[in-house]
Amino acid sequence: MSSVFDAGAEHEQVVFCSDPTSGLRAIIAIYSTALGPALGGTRFHTYPDESAALADALALSRAMAYKAACAGLDLGGGKAVIIGDPATDSSEALLRAYGRFVASLGGRYITACDVGTYPTDMDIVAREARWVVGRSPTHGGSGDSGVMTAYGVFEGMRACATRLWGSPSLEGRTVAVSGVGKVGARLVGHLLEDGAKVLAADVNPAALAHLHEAHPEVEIVADPDELIGAPADIYSPCALGGALTEAAVGRLRARVICGGANNQLAHPGIDKLLAEAGILYAPDFVVNAGGLIQVADEIEGYRAERARVAASRIFTTTHDVFELADAEGQTPGAAAVTLAERRIAGIGRLRRILLP
Amino acid sequence: MSSVFDAGAEHEQVVFCSDPTSGLRAIIAIYSTALGPALGGTRFHTYPDESAALADALALSRAMAYKAACAGLDLGGGKAVIIGDPATDSSEALLRAYGRFVASLGGRYITACDVGTYPTDMDIVAREARWVVGRSPTHGGSGDSGVMTAYGVFEGMRACATRLWGSPSLEGRTVAVSGVGKVGARLVGHLLEDGAKVLAADVNPAALAHLHEAHPEVEIVADPDELIGAPADIYSPCALGGALTEAAVGRLRARVICGGANNQLAHPGIDKLLAEAGILYAPDFVVNAGGLIQVADEIEGYRAERARVAASRIFTTTHDVFELADAEGQTPGAAAVTLAERRIAGIGRLRRILLP
Repeated sequence: MSSVFDAGAEHEQVVFCSDPTSGLRAIIAIYSTALGPALGGTRFHTYPDESAALADALALSRAMAYKAACAGLDLGGGKAVIIGDPATDSSEALLRAYGRFVASLGGRYITACDVGTYPTDMDIVAREARWVVGRSPTHGGSGDSGVMTAYGVFEGMRACATRLWGSPSLEGRTVAVSGVGKVGARLVGHLLEDGAKVLAADVNPAALAHLHEAHPEVEIVADPDELIGAPADIYSPCALGGALTEAAVGRLRARVICGGANNQLAHPGIDKLLAEAGILYAPDFVVNAGGLIQVADEIEGYRAERARVAASRIFTTTHDVFELADAEGQTPGAAAVTLAERRIAGIGRLRRILLP
Repeated sequence: MSSVFDAGAEHEQVVFCSDPTSGLRAIIAIYSTALGPALGGTRFHTYPDESAALADALALSRAMAYKAACAGLDLGGGKAVIIGDPATDSSEALLRAYGRFVASLGGRYITACDVGTYPTDMDIVAREARWVVGRSPTHGGSGDSGVMTAYGVFEGMRACATRLWGSPSLEGRTVAVSGVGKVGARLVGHLLEDGAKVLAADVNPAALAHLHEAHPEVEIVADPDELIGAPADIYSPCALGGALTEAAVGRLRARVICGGANNQLAHPGIDKLLAEAGILYAPDFVVNAGGLIQVADEIEGYRAERARVAASRIFTTTHDVFELADAEGQTPGAAAVTLAERRIAGIGRLRRILLP
């Protein structure tokens, strides 16, 4: 595998945790704790090799740092991966061994759910560690984080509308929502309520059937790939990452991209391509921060109304990113990274003032 | 580099710590905390690559676990490496950044001096972390740990004499001491006081001159290689590791090997070779534990007399290792590992009894 220090040259700490008896092999990556404890989910996944697992933990922890910084949270960025198949390799012993390693960092890392882990898993991890969010509602958890993610994307979309059309209202706009799972379906609800017309696609027929039952007025497009070229004002990627390739951008008819998916751009150069095509891109980690905002609220004891107020600020943050992009001559994606890094540096430096 | 999990398949935790501004790249390896906090020094060394640094940290942390377990200490095994040249790369910022990472483990790892780090460095590390021993005497440190290492080796040698000759006294025995630095020179003092005849060699002429001035009765052998074949009852490796190769064993005329060096055997198979040759080998990590015992005593606030009593138990431990070797039909080296692993398992399991 590649050098850990070279691969994570900007990361603060990378912790390899092993418990042979339960089969646990976990990597906890901490990108930064300059703003606070590094919060990020635990991904339980069968990686082809350890290098792939490390690369994922490093990339995801950096993304969490940027997401938390832009969202105005007092949190750094971290992420953990457990190497294995959650369907066959998970066990109470493995999750609790993992919990003890989370606890070994004494609060520098706060874990949560990610691909392959669920609130009931977090409840088990929490039997060994205090630093766990994304828990079951019966254990003070905030429940499905798709709720606040969808709401935050909606607020980001309103900021896009304000910039392009002078008003936050989406009334009469056509929005193409790709992926109507936990986030997309709820976003559709917000959009319809605001008077938008919605087109939707999903690879999962059950998700489409569910959507149709709840919102029969939504126009279903059979093929998600076809949705990219459909006539719409806004395209909203809410499925897997990497949807925006060069080819996809060439076929886009929407003037705005704003969605809940992570890592929407197939590679960072797409950001520039979108700007050149005159398409307004709302950076994914800025507008999809609602889920993080929701689980982070559990740290103080979850209150939905407080989380909702925090998620509503995504409107302002998205606006600020566009303003910074203008001022610095950057793409919105680059401006969002600048905003995050400035806050990490600017607030992080305040610790030099010793407290009594 | 090789897989961290495969290389450290029996290790509990491996922590990569990075601070680009000060240039810190450190690896903290924790083999086990079953008996208590993982104590082990910080080696500051220019490694050819990261894999070599990792391999060193992994091997040394395991050795520390065995050493602490055999010494009856309430300590696990850990070790840290800082990649770089201490002469040119060390700085207050680097050492304090390292200190913050030691502190990030909240006491699971206790650091100390090793090759390339000194008590004054530990004083700097301790400005960020509470978990530091091997400090300067003015900061409560126990000073040169060669004192108790030499004393412990002497006690181990007395156990060897008891086994072979029925009495712990070394009066009239000839001891060949290879390496008369901080440990070897002090060992010579104990041996002469007990009435032994001493032969000594060292690659460093200054060390030999110093020894001759203090103890003119010691017979100096010009070439350390020649000392191996010299007529002696006991051969005591107190210089660099790896002294006991196949070739060296073939030339040995001593019946006992007992010294202060780490990793005396060029490879584990030498242990068997010595047994077959009828040479009694006192396992290095059993008899050289005095230094660890000394710095570990700093945790409670150093008291030389208490450390001396603890180091004197090396006599009994060495005896117990030989007894276990007999009982299990193992070499002394293998028996010492068995003793360590049994204590780690047997005492570690007591944590299952919940305390109120």
